[in-house]
Amino acid sequence: MRLGDDLLTRFTDTGLLVLPKLFSQREVDLLCAALQPLLAEDDPANIREKGGGAVRTAMGLHLRSPVFARLVRHPRLIGPALQILGRDLYVQQVKVNIKEAFEGEAWQWHYDFATHRHEDGVPAPLALNLHIFLDDVTEFNGPLYFIPGSHREGPAPATLDTASTSYPLWVVDRKTVARLASRNGLVSATGPRGTVLIFGDVMVHASPPNLSPWSRRIFSLIVNPTDNRQTRFQRPDYKHHRDFNPIVPLEDDCLEIDEEALAPH
Amino acid sequence: MRLGDDLLTRFTDTGLLVLPKLFSQREVDLLCAALQPLLAEDDPANIREKGGGAVRTAMGLHLRSPVFARLVRHPRLIGPALQILGRDLYVQQVKVNIKEAFEGEAWQWHYDFATHRHEDGVPAPLALNLHIFLDDVTEFNGPLYFIPGSHREGPAPATLDTASTSYPLWVVDRKTVARLASRNGLVSATGPRGTVLIFGDVMVHASPPNLSPWSRRIFSLIVNPTDNRQTRFQRPDYKHHRDFNPIVPLEDDCLEIDEEALAPH
Repeated sequence: MRLGDDLLTRFTDTGLLVLPKLFSQREVDLLCAALQPLLAEDDPANIREKGGGAVRTAMGLHLRSPVFARLVRHPRLIGPALQILGRDLYVQQVKVNIKEAFEGEAWQWHYDFATHRHEDGVPAPLALNLHIFLDDVTEFNGPLYFIPGSHREGPAPATLDTASTSYPLWVVDRKTVARLASRNGLVSATGPRGTVLIFGDVMVHASPPNLSPWSRRIFSLIVNPTDNRQTRFQRPDYKHHRDFNPIVPLEDDCLEIDEEALAPH
Repeated sequence: MRLGDDLLTRFTDTGLLVLPKLFSQREVDLLCAALQPLLAEDDPANIREKGGGAVRTAMGLHLRSPVFARLVRHPRLIGPALQILGRDLYVQQVKVNIKEAFEGEAWQWHYDFATHRHEDGVPAPLALNLHIFLDDVTEFNGPLYFIPGSHREGPAPATLDTASTSYPLWVVDRKTVARLASRNGLVSATGPRGTVLIFGDVMVHASPPNLSPWSRRIFSLIVNPTDNRQTRFQRPDYKHHRDFNPIVPLEDDCLEIDEEALAPH
């Protein structure tokens, strides 16, 4: 799969791409079925909500499930990423972010490179975050909000917030958010399940809580160029993986293969 | 001002009406100018955010400002309310709800009649809540979410929540919200400043926090039939006023008069 020039231009201009229904209902069903047993595991890579027991983020999924091992090599994710970055990529992080119905918390304004730089010593803000919506994402169940074009100035000032969420987060101060948003506005990334969202490492984004009665699960694969690999290793492997071998894409039907292999003969 | 049959039917079916830009920019400017000094007052009718000093709700405004005294008799608010209810109305509550940029909290799922019944002994769920947006209300700055049609079953079960917000609230349980929303979906009431929103006393609604850099102020007038007046008086007057004289609408230009009277001669 290749992005057309119009999409590449849009990505350069706005810093994000929303590609509706890039994965089929059947493929998303396979991913959800593979996810379900992983959430029940007592694993440090299952990170829970601040106040409760619900898993908010399940990480390291490609090492915990053959389906997700293939998903991180899926050509509909890796093809566009290779096209945008034009060099070898490694798998940096593999997770599903879950905002449970009524429970999912807000995330403050931040961008991912602040964490990648401060925690992992990543040299440059080149990583891409590749999302697949596993549920319909609407304005009501905790979509990501972006400031379009916020990537153009490069990394904004960021400070570590350990209080607001269950996960320490390098956040962007309000003055910077107000300045960027007053120029470019805000957009929310919504779409039906199977939709793909791509955004870069300095895109400023946030997310409201999920007040709706519908859960919101999003698969997230972060890929980073192998020549921009991490230089610090203080975080656990499941937050930044250490296999720097270049990702080799599989065939387009790589998820379907699994179901057939598992089907009764 | 009278609502057409299409709008009356929509109100009967969905339980709410959004009437874009019913008040002019100039009129909204007048209201904002009248509001500003009231927010600085040290008054128990100014209710503050749970954790901070920002005023979240300023109440009793028609007794504190001549502009708001006229606004509660404005024909563009009272006309539709008289048309819908068909009987004499009194001024039950007059406030501006403010969700400050970055600060404004969420409100859980609730409907107003639970409070009006339990706290004030209002016999029947007839009151109407008449809103004017004093700022543009978007998906990003804390709009009201509604379950359309949730008024049709009458009052849902409700319990008193004193923990979630700075204001005790009779909330609807999650099971009921899920059941109603799965049938009718959710809508958010958004629109430019000057937009009017009308909804009834058993409409189930909620509101997300304001993560945006833009404040969101909404004027709210609750009117109730004089023959459905409160029977308990435990709450302060500014939460449920005790002047049961029928509201007599003023002229359509009643807000403008003020500015001219104040202009230099």
